[in-house]
Amino acid sequence: LTLTLSQDLTVWKDDTPIVIETVSSLDRGDTCTLSEIKMSLHSGTHVDAPRHFLPDGNGVDALDLNTLMGPVRVVDLRGHAMITDTVLSGSGIPENMERILFLTDNTEKRILHASRFVSEFTAIDVSGARWLKKMSIRLVGIDALSVAPFDDPVPTHQALLSAGIIIVEGLNFAGVQPGVYQLAVMPLKIKDADGAPARVLLYDIEDG
Amino acid sequence: LTLTLSQDLTVWKDDTPIVIETVSSLDRGDTCTLSEIKMSLHSGTHVDAPRHFLPDGNGVDALDLNTLMGPVRVVDLRGHAMITDTVLSGSGIPENMERILFLTDNTEKRILHASRFVSEFTAIDVSGARWLKKMSIRLVGIDALSVAPFDDPVPTHQALLSAGIIIVEGLNFAGVQPGVYQLAVMPLKIKDADGAPARVLLYDIEDG
Repeated sequence: LTLTLSQDLTVWKDDTPIVIETVSSLDRGDTCTLSEIKMSLHSGTHVDAPRHFLPDGNGVDALDLNTLMGPVRVVDLRGHAMITDTVLSGSGIPENMERILFLTDNTEKRILHASRFVSEFTAIDVSGARWLKKMSIRLVGIDALSVAPFDDPVPTHQALLSAGIIIVEGLNFAGVQPGVYQLAVMPLKIKDADGAPARVLLYDIEDG
Repeated sequence: LTLTLSQDLTVWKDDTPIVIETVSSLDRGDTCTLSEIKMSLHSGTHVDAPRHFLPDGNGVDALDLNTLMGPVRVVDLRGHAMITDTVLSGSGIPENMERILFLTDNTEKRILHASRFVSEFTAIDVSGARWLKKMSIRLVGIDALSVAPFDDPVPTHQALLSAGIIIVEGLNFAGVQPGVYQLAVMPLKIKDADGAPARVLLYDIEDG
């Protein structure tokens, strides 16, 4: 589920691009090959921490590993331009689901693989965020660089983060079918950070 | 098992320090708090890819997740200044073990938490690396920023990486006892990179 990080990976509009520089190199006769990276904490597949949108919110290092790992449902919301409360009510999400990932038209449009940032994408509007808040959801993920619409990021993020819901963005659903899986979301442990790039895995339940 | 990344975390001698910069901030009236990071790919808890020391070696994005996850033994090698073939022969490592982490005096000395890089640390010498190569070991980890002695990094790394053994460095064993656990090592997926910072978890077998 993880996007491969490289200098070619498109980031959010006007955000810091990914730059990888070779500090030493076997090809140049150095002892080893050694590189450094400069990137936004919200590059590629990543997690938003509460303090991304909440002044007193926790950092990404304080997120609960028990929430980041466990059973998850990949819900097929293809065909919907916006994820609203009405769309979610009709999507058959069971009441007791704690983790949910939305597979949307963004995947087929390959917006995360586009050569430029795409600002028109399927996202969760504030009615959808409030609906999730009323359920038992603890973690929500999407196949776009934001869970919220491009022109209205604040209400969706605030509603989810203030409810303690962990947000996972930039999911790469290549080859993944809707269904129930085991999920492991592993953000870098960065002190008090507003977010962090992550490695995200899905397993079949029987391998869990 | 993961060190917390921050600007205070000590890196390898003369390697790129960790710099985290705030790009936008709620405190300054921006829409959200957003940061960027610049770091060596070998900062904190991290994985070495074959191409770190092998000219034609694979990148970190090509490492096998089936090796990065599974049963592991935390071996107590405290009291040894160097991990040699003799030390390993006497350490009671079972023949069929695929993943092994070395808990050494480095942990009690808190070298990874020191305010300056410490060049005297317990590491695996080339005899130890060759011993591991002859066993069924697929992954080896240590509580130092390198598996190899400071003044002789090449032979140990080359022996391990050329045998396809994944190297995990910078392990934080605070509160961990020797024994058998489940391990999950999750490096960032960076294209063709010589290494990557990682989130590393140990579980009790029964929770597996």
